[in-house]
Amino acid sequence: MQLGLIGLGKMGGFMRDRIKAAGHEVVGYDTNQDISDVKDLKELVSKLDAPRHVWVMVPAGKVTQSVIDELGTLLEPGDLVVDGGNSKFTDDAKHAEELSAKGIEFVDCGVSGGVWGLDNGYGLMAGGTKENIDRMMPIFDALRPEGPRDEGFVHAGDVGAGHYVKMVHNGIEYGMMQAYAEGYELLEAKEIVKDVPAAFKAWTRGTVVRSWLQELMAAALEKDPDLSDLSGFVNDSGEGRWTVQEAVEYGVPMPVISASLFQRFFSRQGENSPAMKAVAALRNGFGGHAVTKKGEKGIVTDH
Amino acid sequence: MQLGLIGLGKMGGFMRDRIKAAGHEVVGYDTNQDISDVKDLKELVSKLDAPRHVWVMVPAGKVTQSVIDELGTLLEPGDLVVDGGNSKFTDDAKHAEELSAKGIEFVDCGVSGGVWGLDNGYGLMAGGTKENIDRMMPIFDALRPEGPRDEGFVHAGDVGAGHYVKMVHNGIEYGMMQAYAEGYELLEAKEIVKDVPAAFKAWTRGTVVRSWLQELMAAALEKDPDLSDLSGFVNDSGEGRWTVQEAVEYGVPMPVISASLFQRFFSRQGENSPAMKAVAALRNGFGGHAVTKKGEKGIVTDH
Amino acid sequence: MQLGLIGLGKMGGFMRDRIKAAGHEVVGYDTNQDISDVKDLKELVSKLDAPRHVWVMVPAGKVTQSVIDELGTLLEPGDLVVDGGNSKFTDDAKHAEELSAKGIEFVDCGVSGGVWGLDNGYGLMAGGTKENIDRMMPIFDALRPEGPRDEGFVHAGDVGAGHYVKMVHNGIEYGMMQAYAEGYELLEAKEIVKDVPAAFKAWTRGTVVRSWLQELMAAALEKDPDLSDLSGFVNDSGEGRWTVQEAVEYGVPMPVISASLFQRFFSRQGENSPAMKAVAALRNGFGGHAVTKKGEKGIVTDH
Amino acid sequence: MQLGLIGLGKMGGFMRDRIKAAGHEVVGYDTNQDISDVKDLKELVSKLDAPRHVWVMVPAGKVTQSVIDELGTLLEPGDLVVDGGNSKFTDDAKHAEELSAKGIEFVDCGVSGGVWGLDNGYGLMAGGTKENIDRMMPIFDALRPEGPRDEGFVHAGDVGAGHYVKMVHNGIEYGMMQAYAEGYELLEAKEIVKDVPAAFKAWTRGTVVRSWLQELMAAALEKDPDLSDLSGFVNDSGEGRWTVQEAVEYGVPMPVISASLFQRFFSRQGENSPAMKAVAALRNGFGGHAVTKKGEKGIVTDH
Repeated sequence: MQLGLIGLGKMGGFMRDRIKAAGHEVVGYDTNQDISDVKDLKELVSKLDAPRHVWVMVPAGKVTQSVIDELGTLLEPGDLVVDGGNSKFTDDAKHAEELSAKGIEFVDCGVSGGVWGLDNGYGLMAGGTKENIDRMMPIFDALRPEGPRDEGFVHAGDVGAGHYVKMVHNGIEYGMMQAYAEGYELLEAKEIVKDVPAAFKAWTRGTVVRSWLQELMAAALEKDPDLSDLSGFVNDSGEGRWTVQEAVEYGVPMPVISASLFQRFFSRQGENSPAMKAVAALRNGFGGHAVTKKGEKGIVTDH
Repeated sequence: MQLGLIGLGKMGGFMRDRIKAAGHEVVGYDTNQDISDVKDLKELVSKLDAPRHVWVMVPAGKVTQSVIDELGTLLEPGDLVVDGGNSKFTDDAKHAEELSAKGIEFVDCGVSGGVWGLDNGYGLMAGGTKENIDRMMPIFDALRPEGPRDEGFVHAGDVGAGHYVKMVHNGIEYGMMQAYAEGYELLEAKEIVKDVPAAFKAWTRGTVVRSWLQELMAAALEKDPDLSDLSGFVNDSGEGRWTVQEAVEYGVPMPVISASLFQRFFSRQGENSPAMKAVAALRNGFGGHAVTKKGEKGIVTDH
Repeated sequence: MQLGLIGLGKMGGFMRDRIKAAGHEVVGYDTNQDISDVKDLKELVSKLDAPRHVWVMVPAGKVTQSVIDELGTLLEPGDLVVDGGNSKFTDDAKHAEELSAKGIEFVDCGVSGGVWGLDNGYGLMAGGTKENIDRMMPIFDALRPEGPRDEGFVHAGDVGAGHYVKMVHNGIEYGMMQAYAEGYELLEAKEIVKDVPAAFKAWTRGTVVRSWLQELMAAALEKDPDLSDLSGFVNDSGEGRWTVQEAVEYGVPMPVISASLFQRFFSRQGENSPAMKAVAALRNGFGGHAVTKKGEKGIVTDH
Repeated sequence: MQLGLIGLGKMGGFMRDRIKAAGHEVVGYDTNQDISDVKDLKELVSKLDAPRHVWVMVPAGKVTQSVIDELGTLLEPGDLVVDGGNSKFTDDAKHAEELSAKGIEFVDCGVSGGVWGLDNGYGLMAGGTKENIDRMMPIFDALRPEGPRDEGFVHAGDVGAGHYVKMVHNGIEYGMMQAYAEGYELLEAKEIVKDVPAAFKAWTRGTVVRSWLQELMAAALEKDPDLSDLSGFVNDSGEGRWTVQEAVEYGVPMPVISASLFQRFFSRQGENSPAMKAVAALRNGFGGHAVTKKGEKGIVTDH
């Protein structure tokens, strides 16, 4: 089938290749004209036969909103837009409503797989009506990994459900990464353990903790056994935050995923943490415990 | 080679089959005479040619200790004992020392794989001298999964390091399970998400969170989509506790694995939690908030 | 001065008494006509001289919104409305804007002190312009505790800042309560400790943890040493949730306050926790660990 | 009465003054001869009439052990030793047994109050037999704050119970400090809140969170509103660690106190956190997310 694909960056570019490889026709647009098939969205729409299918793969938030807005003016009733970016599920309801007012259909689709997707295929989580999902199925089948469809694709529910499942997927990912990371740190600290990279690698087969993340961890440690090249400064990307906020909203206890998120926040503060300055001030206040002045090197006292 | 195997239960029984299938001779002992090859440890030792190799696969703690004690009186200098049970790493140092006084060698080996090990092989994490590890390698090779040795076996370090790596493996496992579980609960709570079992299954290929535990979760939800058959009462098995205590000892931040452990403790208390009774008493004390009396059904108030 | 007071429940009723005791005139309205001075808001407004001062002390959310809406139609430019309820700070901006369009001034004020306020006075946290705060100061002085003004009252910032500071106050309160509660549970568990109520009472003077909550805890334990009368089912009241959601929004690590909130969520689930059912299912899946069926009594196994 | 007091440092020195002020005779010993009344323990013992009472106030661990050992050789049956330092409760049982073998009595006593004790008195938590506690009561009454005895002193239980209650006291203290600190950081982050120091001060009267720590926090912020002078590098002192390890041992959920402890560990690692390096490596591995190299300044990306 024919697909308009907006956004040909790290994710979108690989996706174009994979969809084409499956025999579909892709008209791609990117603000970088060197990689774009067309000069603007108007030309993109003009190159597609109605009813059109357009996949949006651009940064969530303002950029996605402006693309949706422009598509609303260019597309026709019966056309269908898929948002495959990292939009928040609350945006989906809004986008669906805005497009619906013009007779345009909407599907949201969370996409997992990162830079590995070109070769392995992408895990897909979609939300929308059954009819719209069915219309897009050839593209979903092109993008998802080999194997049974239900192992790499889900129609998760109504509009927004695709991004919601992807959001929770990322929240779980935060928790898993932190679990491996805590285990790594303890193993590194223990004198009798001599080969931590080999331990992570040995978990690849037969163990309960084997996973793709475990294999990535083993590979990273194989290249740089002490991770000595890296700083522990870690960013987050939105989905973890939304997951925790949703948990709070729904009264769902979420100690592990929230802790993983908070560790990332904390990792960016170091000795500038306002909270820990407050704890230092209190310790000094009641016990005369020595404080470390700003700029001094802290000394770990024997507990 | 020849192996004495002590303990033929859920783990040990399958291991015997797997070792035999690899062409080794196994003399097995169990307190259950129906499945035992010999009537006692003395007979087991008599059936093995020196230098002997004996694998102990019995419950950690007192039972393991008594077996080690008895082996100390029956074996000869140059024989080798492997503790493949779930012993705490601190016991390994003790056992190694006790046996060493009699010239007997010792290796500890953490074994992962549970009931799936017979078919898939067991993930093995061993501690001890290189010489002793090499002596046992034919057995390790029989037990571990197919594929490259370093993906299912590790010589992790000195005596105790095998059980230590296995302990941390289990701590990580706690964190991973809790991460999936929190994500599951949030997905179940969200109205727009209609098919949670399908979401877990769709993570099998192409996603970042794919893992053996994820596949088990998908399988469990396929059988019982709401887990309606189960109680949320969850036990723990020692390794999680030791992992957290070690983290505290070494000054390693471990928010995720500790939270996973504490959730299990809490899951066994329910409305009998002394801490939450104290919180209820405090809320009543300062704000006149209604408390739920013991035996009454609590009502969730609109927050 | 003259004050219109809307809402004469547990909080408002005591506040009326305290404001009157300070020599001010209060016209109170409540939907319960038995305690109301006037039959409706229209009558209340008619009994006040312009420029009027009206304190709203009704449940946050819809009820507060409808009162603000009605006041907007009844009051005149130059009048001033104080929202002293538990409104979310985001509502304050909205209310201020709605009233401002009609020339009516707005102040938000968080009120702490619960049922003890009549005797001890209420801790007050206000937001708004300096001019409006000054206008209300006689009432603030009547409500706040004896002693220096700055020990019981704060002009925290712009509109919304009063409720924001009160919200964070409640978040801290959650953390403190949980800290005492965890300590209580551990003391109760330890065999060598024989008198836990006396320990809490002995912390009243000279210790680092002395506080009003500690005194309330000591009093509760004096009456019911084992808290045997209570269930551990604990509700939450909104502010804790908003605090955590704000922390996530601002990238502030908040492990303690979030954990306190999550424990409350969990306390209401007990063995029905979906997450812990998932953990139970996973344990059973990989290790054949026994699960507790719904309705069965769980048994704590020796770890 | 007569008291031998060993250790005249920050705590012991003030305690000597307070005990003397209550009319008791104190023979003090310190390794610093400038402040010591005697040249060694032998002389200290010789200056006391039997049955003697000796209060040990030296660093926990090796120093306390060596003092107990020496007292065991110098004292006589019927004499009584009090350990008022920060010993772990497990040491108390050991010390009591060692001294008991020589007919010497033992009491453990946790002491709270820090540098404020000279003026305010010290909160005391004691363990031992009723007879021994009664013998020491005149000294306990001299040290504890004014007011009813049961508000500043507790006989908590058997030997070890005093230090145990003090240990849990410190654990609770960790949780409370962290709760205030998290609230502080969020208030600082919020634009509409203009005066955070004033907010903390205004909580002194009438609020639920009023406490001694809250007053210390207000005082600290009054002096240095942004805590700009301080580093967030915070040490811990043993009791928090033991509290968490005990909670794990007893199956007591302790999310808040453990999180407080882990934040301190983390505060000393900053960008050198091995766990967060591992998380960074994983993010880079699956998504090609940029990592911060060691030594580079991290940039917070827009989430």
